[in-house]
Amino acid sequence: MAHIQLPEGLPGIRGPMAFRPETSKPLNELAEVLLRSENTLTRGERELIATYVSYLNDCFYCQNTHGGIAQHYLQCDISHIDSVKKDFESVNLSDKLKALLSIAASVQKGGKFVTPEQIEKAKSFGATDIEIHDTVLIAAAFCMFNRYVDGLGTWAPQGRNFYVERGPRRAAEGYAGLDLYK
Amino acid sequence: MAHIQLPEGLPGIRGPMAFRPETSKPLNELAEVLLRSENTLTRGERELIATYVSYLNDCFYCQNTHGGIAQHYLQCDISHIDSVKKDFESVNLSDKLKALLSIAASVQKGGKFVTPEQIEKAKSFGATDIEIHDTVLIAAAFCMFNRYVDGLGTWAPQGRNFYVERGPRRAAEGYAGLDLYK
Repeated sequence: MAHIQLPEGLPGIRGPMAFRPETSKPLNELAEVLLRSENTLTRGERELIATYVSYLNDCFYCQNTHGGIAQHYLQCDISHIDSVKKDFESVNLSDKLKALLSIAASVQKGGKFVTPEQIEKAKSFGATDIEIHDTVLIAAAFCMFNRYVDGLGTWAPQGRNFYVERGPRRAAEGYAGLDLYK
Repeated sequence: MAHIQLPEGLPGIRGPMAFRPETSKPLNELAEVLLRSENTLTRGERELIATYVSYLNDCFYCQNTHGGIAQHYLQCDISHIDSVKKDFESVNLSDKLKALLSIAASVQKGGKFVTPEQIEKAKSFGATDIEIHDTVLIAAAFCMFNRYVDGLGTWAPQGRNFYVERGPRRAAEGYAGLDLYK
């Protein structure tokens, strides 16, 4: 049971979002800009960064929700997402994305864990300043979203198929115009 | 030097905010709703929660910026803010605010650190569901803002007076209509 009285039947972040639409509006706008708007990082790459940080924060709802969306964009199966979580260095990803995932992992620990060497490495593989900025902010934002979801003790469906099946619809809907009660 | 090329002369979060106005808009709207909009928690109490979490995350810019604003609202001196950081339980604050600060400290570690006992305690001192929700989200949001500021290696003026003097102006301006280049 959640720590406060939330609208019933809504999993994960949907409960607090329906409870407090005043804060949901900027939260969803932030997700929309970071994860879906025009960018040289693909939507799949950005969802993968969000998934990885949510995994590091041990947030079941977020890692599976964004993992399902990443899986849809990347047209991969769930074992690929799991391999990224387990050891992204050993997975078939671009060197640039690996360097950005490493920066995201440092941000998850705390902003000061990001090193000039990590940044240089990302730049040497072609990462632009905007890509580095957005990676840092996506990682930071999911340190917020994950804490929001778990800090209020929300519930989440436990079957991972729920999230995989929902991925394509969530990808189509986006975040900005989200119906908070669905 | 920051990790990426940011507009010059802007301290802390101001640099990345001017660099990427697309993401600044929802970030500032979130701060405005959480810290300044109509609420049974005073603006001073909310800025104090933001300050405390920024202190726990060791973010110099954020803890001093919001500490300066809290000091203005609470009409206290800087030693009061420092005492809250050091040991809020020993400071003259309401029992409700102490219970909320304890929840915020748990959120800073991770969402799952919040216990039902902490929530019950806050409720027993009169905290409403919205107050608990907002405390969790303020704490979570500053886990984002702090990582954003430090993860990009931004600079900050080191003299604490800079922030104390700026507090009243920042309190008057608010966050939503922020001129990103000031």
